Amino acid sequence: MKLLEERIQTDGRVLGTEVLKVDNFLNHQVDPALMQAMGTEVLKVDNFLNHQVDPALMQAMGNEFARLFATEKIDKVLTVESSGIAPAVFAALALNVPMVFARKKQSLTLSGDHYVADVYSFTKQETNHILVDKRFIQPGERLLLIDDFLANGQAVAGMLQIASDAGATVVGAGIVIEKTFQKGRALLDEQGVRVESLARIAAFENGQVVFADESPVAN
Amino acid sequence: MKLLEERIQTDGRVLGTEVLKVDNFLNHQVDPALMQAMGTEVLKVDNFLNHQVDPALMQAMGNEFARLFATEKIDKVLTVESSGIAPAVFAALALNVPMVFARKKQSLTLSGDHYVADVYSFTKQETNHILVDKRFIQPGERLLLIDDFLANGQAVAGMLQIASDAGATVVGAGIVIEKTFQKGRALLDEQGVRVESLARIAAFENGQVVFADESPVAN
Repeated sequence: MKLLEERIQTDGRVLGTEVLKVDNFLNHQVDPALMQAMGTEVLKVDNFLNHQVDPALMQAMGNEFARLFATEKIDKVLTVESSGIAPAVFAALALNVPMVFARKKQSLTLSGDHYVADVYSFTKQETNHILVDKRFIQPGERLLLIDDFLANGQAVAGMLQIASDAGATVVGAGIVIEKTFQKGRALLDEQGVRVESLARIAAFENGQVVFADESPVAN
Repeated sequence: MKLLEERIQTDGRVLGTEVLKVDNFLNHQVDPALMQAMGTEVLKVDNFLNHQVDPALMQAMGNEFARLFATEKIDKVLTVESSGIAPAVFAALALNVPMVFARKKQSLTLSGDHYVADVYSFTKQETNHILVDKRFIQPGERLLLIDDFLANGQAVAGMLQIASDAGATVVGAGIVIEKTFQKGRALLDEQGVRVESLARIAAFENGQVVFADESPVAN
């Protein structure tokens, strides 16, 4: 999606080893070795996607997700709070279906009322739980999953597990930004999940974003 | 806003003393004395507002907020994750301005990069911090605050503090559901903040919602 790629080029900030993970702007006490390992894999898009939000871009992305999955019968859009909500609600609007967002919890008091999955964060090195009230996913429903990033695929895997536990069918995953050099896409391909990403980032080179359909910049 | 009031009547669940606070569906270990004190003040709207979301209703509400504040110059919409995001992003779309959502954190590693305010939750009996990156609110900017509920007014008060710290001006607060019998509205009136609520709930009587502009149902 050209509009999004241009926005990433204009407003996304690739910050080498100096920066915090996207969406994790507060955690200033990150393990230095981990930051080193993350290396050039960091891209900040909090000025239009996940802290300050551009509503017109969100609407365009939601329309694009609806177009990409237009041939599928879809009953609901499922995402995870908080950064998934804006793109997901516009996809759901365009598809004329409800949107459900899974809640994230660090601690968990189990009850029988919710579907629960664990989501491990490689950068935070912690496990969170995501939950959906059982009333909101019915057996047989066809779900479109939406998320802002696809990196290691843990959030989407968690949503897949919830869908499976609910007896629902996943028609595919709509991703805003996919980092093709991390393992999430392969994990979803193995499971036969259709993935549509609006921007596919192949690498960060010399502080620049290289999209998957571009020739890499020579070093 | 008639559309919203009808939806609250149809899908909102008033659950007497038996239920958890709205938006807090997991916390099953609530203090029984607190639940007693909360009494009939509980309304669950998680089937269209804050867990499962109705996108068309969100869009209608966003348009209504834009109409209500049409005479104001507004630079940005500010809300708090997660339940504020959907109504706020549609208000921002209709106003053609960016939307910023404050992040909630239970623990806090202070840095100079963020505006921070404390938000006390009466029902959870805990204080959370809300944060906004300083890049996203500039001195002199005119902000419209959006939130899903106005009860004791703590979240809006937190946003007011952040706006004040940033040197920004608050043109008003757009609230989806106001509970007029709690102290939030009075608190905002005292500070001269214009409040526009799409639904104003005066009471829960016999398991029914009584709106502020209706005559109460006789007992």
